[in-house]
Amino acid sequence: MPQTAGVGRVSLDSVADRFNTEISVAVARSVFEQGLARPRLVGIIANEDTEGEVYARMTKRACEKNGIAFELRRLDRVVLEAGVIEANEDANVHGIIIYYPVFGGQIDEYLRDVVSIEKDVEGLNHRYRYALYHNIRTLGGVAGRAVTAGKKCIAPCTPLAVIKILESLDAYDRSKPVGRQLTGQTAVVFNRSEVVGRPLAAMLANDGARVFSVDEHGMLLYSAGAVDGTIKVEETTATQQEALRDAAIVVSGVPSKAFQIQADSIRAGAIAVNFSQHQNFGPGIEERCIFVPAIGKVSFDQSPPWSP
Amino acid sequence: MPQTAGVGRVSLDSVADRFNTEISVAVARSVFEQGLARPRLVGIIANEDTEGEVYARMTKRACEKNGIAFELRRLDRVVLEAGVIEANEDANVHGIIIYYPVFGGQIDEYLRDVVSIEKDVEGLNHRYRYALYHNIRTLGGVAGRAVTAGKKCIAPCTPLAVIKILESLDAYDRSKPVGRQLTGQTAVVFNRSEVVGRPLAAMLANDGARVFSVDEHGMLLYSAGAVDGTIKVEETTATQQEALRDAAIVVSGVPSKAFQIQADSIRAGAIAVNFSQHQNFGPGIEERCIFVPAIGKVSFDQSPPWSP
Repeated sequence: MPQTAGVGRVSLDSVADRFNTEISVAVARSVFEQGLARPRLVGIIANEDTEGEVYARMTKRACEKNGIAFELRRLDRVVLEAGVIEANEDANVHGIIIYYPVFGGQIDEYLRDVVSIEKDVEGLNHRYRYALYHNIRTLGGVAGRAVTAGKKCIAPCTPLAVIKILESLDAYDRSKPVGRQLTGQTAVVFNRSEVVGRPLAAMLANDGARVFSVDEHGMLLYSAGAVDGTIKVEETTATQQEALRDAAIVVSGVPSKAFQIQADSIRAGAIAVNFSQHQNFGPGIEERCIFVPAIGKVSFDQSPPWSP
Repeated sequence: MPQTAGVGRVSLDSVADRFNTEISVAVARSVFEQGLARPRLVGIIANEDTEGEVYARMTKRACEKNGIAFELRRLDRVVLEAGVIEANEDANVHGIIIYYPVFGGQIDEYLRDVVSIEKDVEGLNHRYRYALYHNIRTLGGVAGRAVTAGKKCIAPCTPLAVIKILESLDAYDRSKPVGRQLTGQTAVVFNRSEVVGRPLAAMLANDGARVFSVDEHGMLLYSAGAVDGTIKVEETTATQQEALRDAAIVVSGVPSKAFQIQADSIRAGAIAVNFSQHQNFGPGIEERCIFVPAIGKVSFDQSPPWSP
């Protein structure tokens, strides 16, 4: 079990195990009891990047562990878009992952929205991103498409993993209604990328927290808006020191060896989560906080949390 | 009239004048004959960028010349998205321009798709971009929205301006059907940005041309696909020299002072169009080609082509 009282380094195996079990059971039921096709995830590699290959192997391992078929397709980048459209239209494909970067920059952004909303397992589609920033948790109907109104919106994987970890550490007050379970809490998120930091800040604000979002240019404050289900984003005059002093949750993903948050700048007993490939928290963090040194990322120097 | 025979520097005033007249007449008819509201374009500035202010003034001047109302709104960046949504929902607003960059990078990409497809006058919406790369020239219906099926898709302004210039220079063979009027022609486009170079290459290919698209990493070849209305994109082993030797159309927008295409590398009598803020064509270009030194861009050192 993850350590929920006191401080120390948290092992995440049990968090991942719960979801692995949940997925395996759901897949087995749908295949054996309901006679549905085994879900098939198609990964597409269209670059020469070895990291993509590693990530694809990890995806395959995680899929197969849970009874999901994984198929890797290698395509030339010039036919990648056509390959995505083919997979969109193929009823035997249930999910699509493209291993980015392919072209880099705006062409990759364009490709993210070519993946159909039904098969976008990464939540990179503009419709899902918009939903996240507006606290819309389920899809409405999509005309002429097979989407079931009421389907849960897909959140991007890394921010969602952070949320699941925070839940497992009892940072969420389950006696309150969904959307209010972090009310009264302050969080600080270092990183405001579109892939992790900004969606994470929004998700925490959607759950009621006051979130200081920090990037190299400064801080913004995310919080629940006056109208239910809206987010307010404000410039802030608070200092980083003040933000950290208030925060029960500090999450950091700064891609720099030089960047470090001093342990004693954080409230004792707070939850500190690192998702950078570098260690963003300074010495003594384990003695002072509930410390999560890494989330389920794919890297060369450690086993992912879902491996045995 | 633009010079269509022989070579020399081309003045674009007459090209712009034709469209100014067309727009003015259409606006006057809709307001005075049909009693419709005067079209209103809202420009939103949410940065401190002086270039945005200059561009906004130019937009205002161009709008008012043609009877279109222009309203500039200045918003803090943290309420920009809310401001766009408000304008989307306001029946008195018919078009929206955001002056980028605001946040820069992916957040701006996100905002481009927040502008509703009915009011996106810049064609930056994913749906329009997808249409362009798939040679879809009119919109289908959009469920629950006011879009008329059959509305022409919006193309991005700079590539569209290049096409209009090429048409005015009789590069298009109007005896052939639309989509084939450049068949048999080769074009070279230096620049493969998502804003100008890539859409332009696709638009020329949609019209039948064989297009070499050049960026700092190399060349790709765009052409009409085997199935009507599709584009084929291929890696190519042709050299730049070979591409230029074949090309009847050379368009360049390389943002570098150092970059220069030698006049004698281009076929005599070809059309050469520069859309960079720097002069990408070398000395002697006017003597060898039909030369368009700049298209309707906003800059500090020259009047835009629509000004008197």
